[in-house]
Amino acid sequence: MSGDRVFTSSRKAISRLHDNGGYGKVQDGKLFLSLLEAAYLVEKGRIKVTDNERELSVEELMELGRRRDDCFDVKYITYRDLRNRGYVVKSGLKFGSHFRVYRGRTDEHSQWLVWVVPENTKMSPNDITARVRVAHGVKKAMVMAVVDEDGDVTYYEVKWVRL
Amino acid sequence: MSGDRVFTSSRKAISRLHDNGGYGKVQDGKLFLSLLEAAYLVEKGRIKVTDNERELSVEELMELGRRRDDCFDVKYITYRDLRNRGYVVKSGLKFGSHFRVYRGRTDEHSQWLVWVVPENTKMSPNDITARVRVAHGVKKAMVMAVVDEDGDVTYYEVKWVRL
Amino acid sequence: MSGDRVFTSSRKAISRLHDNGGYGKVQDGKLFLSLLEAAYLVEKGRIKVTDNERELSVEELMELGRRRDDCFDVKYITYRDLRNRGYVVKSGLKFGSHFRVYRGRTDEHSQWLVWVVPENTKMSPNDITARVRVAHGVKKAMVMAVVDEDGDVTYYEVKWVRL
Amino acid sequence: MSGDRVFTSSRKAISRLHDNGGYGKVQDGKLFLSLLEAAYLVEKGRIKVTDNERELSVEELMELGRRRDDCFDVKYITYRDLRNRGYVVKSGLKFGSHFRVYRGRTDEHSQWLVWVVPENTKMSPNDITARVRVAHGVKKAMVMAVVDEDGDVTYYEVKWVRL
Repeated sequence: MSGDRVFTSSRKAISRLHDNGGYGKVQDGKLFLSLLEAAYLVEKGRIKVTDNERELSVEELMELGRRRDDCFDVKYITYRDLRNRGYVVKSGLKFGSHFRVYRGRTDEHSQWLVWVVPENTKMSPNDITARVRVAHGVKKAMVMAVVDEDGDVTYYEVKWVRL
Repeated sequence: MSGDRVFTSSRKAISRLHDNGGYGKVQDGKLFLSLLEAAYLVEKGRIKVTDNERELSVEELMELGRRRDDCFDVKYITYRDLRNRGYVVKSGLKFGSHFRVYRGRTDEHSQWLVWVVPENTKMSPNDITARVRVAHGVKKAMVMAVVDEDGDVTYYEVKWVRL
Repeated sequence: MSGDRVFTSSRKAISRLHDNGGYGKVQDGKLFLSLLEAAYLVEKGRIKVTDNERELSVEELMELGRRRDDCFDVKYITYRDLRNRGYVVKSGLKFGSHFRVYRGRTDEHSQWLVWVVPENTKMSPNDITARVRVAHGVKKAMVMAVVDEDGDVTYYEVKWVRL
Repeated sequence: MSGDRVFTSSRKAISRLHDNGGYGKVQDGKLFLSLLEAAYLVEKGRIKVTDNERELSVEELMELGRRRDDCFDVKYITYRDLRNRGYVVKSGLKFGSHFRVYRGRTDEHSQWLVWVVPENTKMSPNDITARVRVAHGVKKAMVMAVVDEDGDVTYYEVKWVRL
């Protein structure tokens, strides 16, 4: 790890995590993982992250995440829930959502754009309609992931209907 | 018309408006229309509403509606839009929504529960999940009708998905 | 504690709090508590929450809650009141309410769906009918918890009656 | 009829309407009917109301009602609905509600205190809790009659629960 960037140059790790698992992004022969991905893989015992030779815990990784993102926790809860269900999960930033979610490999079209909403937020209809519009334009489903106080996630698909 | 109640005893009107159009409610041989229905039918030139022999305009009917209901305008806009598209529209109160919407006759099951949301409302996820749950329980679709500042209505179906 | 997540890996704590008390959610061998649960357990002196080795007070935990949720206080007051009376309390989001309340263990059906209403809210009949309908559909009782200015909670069951 | 008071001195009418039907109030050998009662009985064809020898229609009676009471229409809709279902309905003013409703004769205890609420009102929890309190004190059930846009009435019993 270096700064907030988690990476590896190991060929084997790249094949295992990226090529098969859809984790991270390969650049110049290195695999870079997001903090969500790194925290998840550490939590699952699949990787170790070291900073100056010191191993980092899930919580330390999450703390790094929170420093840059107030919503890191609810995003992580949703990320983990989706990954645990076998989906591949990538950033949805380009589409104004939190995640793009794939049933299988990321070289196919993603199925959903997932927008994470904590139970106690106040939303404006515009928050929803903007994301539905984008999803509609790229032929994906827009899914609102509502995270409740207990950390359970419920998914609601929102679809533009022409009556 | 009398007070807020618009009604007729004409057999022909009852057959045309209620039996064929799904407008109003027949009680003791009279057809009673809600202000939404009356305003719409006046706007379409299909009925005349008189109060002490004076004919009332759509605006006068809407003004009556507004006096009792802050949301009369957005409801009317949605009501009109749905009717213009050929749907039969009744109150959805019992289901916690604004309208039940039928593709055809009201003796069949309604298709949608429509919840009218002005563009500038703030919603809590709770408000949405309650209505989605009701719709799910009665096997209807929950549709959010978002009314924008220009008075355009866009419809969004919200559905609980199990991933 | 780390960020907004309060957790422990202690087997003994998990057994005592989760298995016997119905607190929190176990994931990958850790027990995660919501801020409502953590604040309550700290107030009762049953746990200590530390952040970077510093112990947090109830007020500090509540302050964290308020930052994310305008209604944290009234929810906490209701949560505490229900817990003090011996009930197990979990999120009711999926049912459009604030809490599911169990008489005993959470593996039985919950008894009530509790919707927290501060004394000074304005409600529309719609908000009530939606939640009554949900409760009716899942054979639970819909309970409105009205929190007054003094922080006292009064419970009202609302039930659909066919006359 | 005289002013807004509808009355009769006919023994036969008194026996039929008051003694058997629970309509009106007998005073000094005369039966006085409220405007709700008079309108209902005229609508059902059971009485005729004359003012200076001119017969009044239901609508004329209702117009009189509206002049003194903005909510006359929704109250009438509820009154009629309850009467049509076979209940005896009297004013609930003394109890802060709109109606006292009896299953049978009015010399028994009334069953419910009914509070009429149009679909589009905004309520404060206090509006509800005050009426529940009163009903609780006199061992009756508090019933909210929500009148929707179509003039349909749905009944919700609200009950104080000690958890």
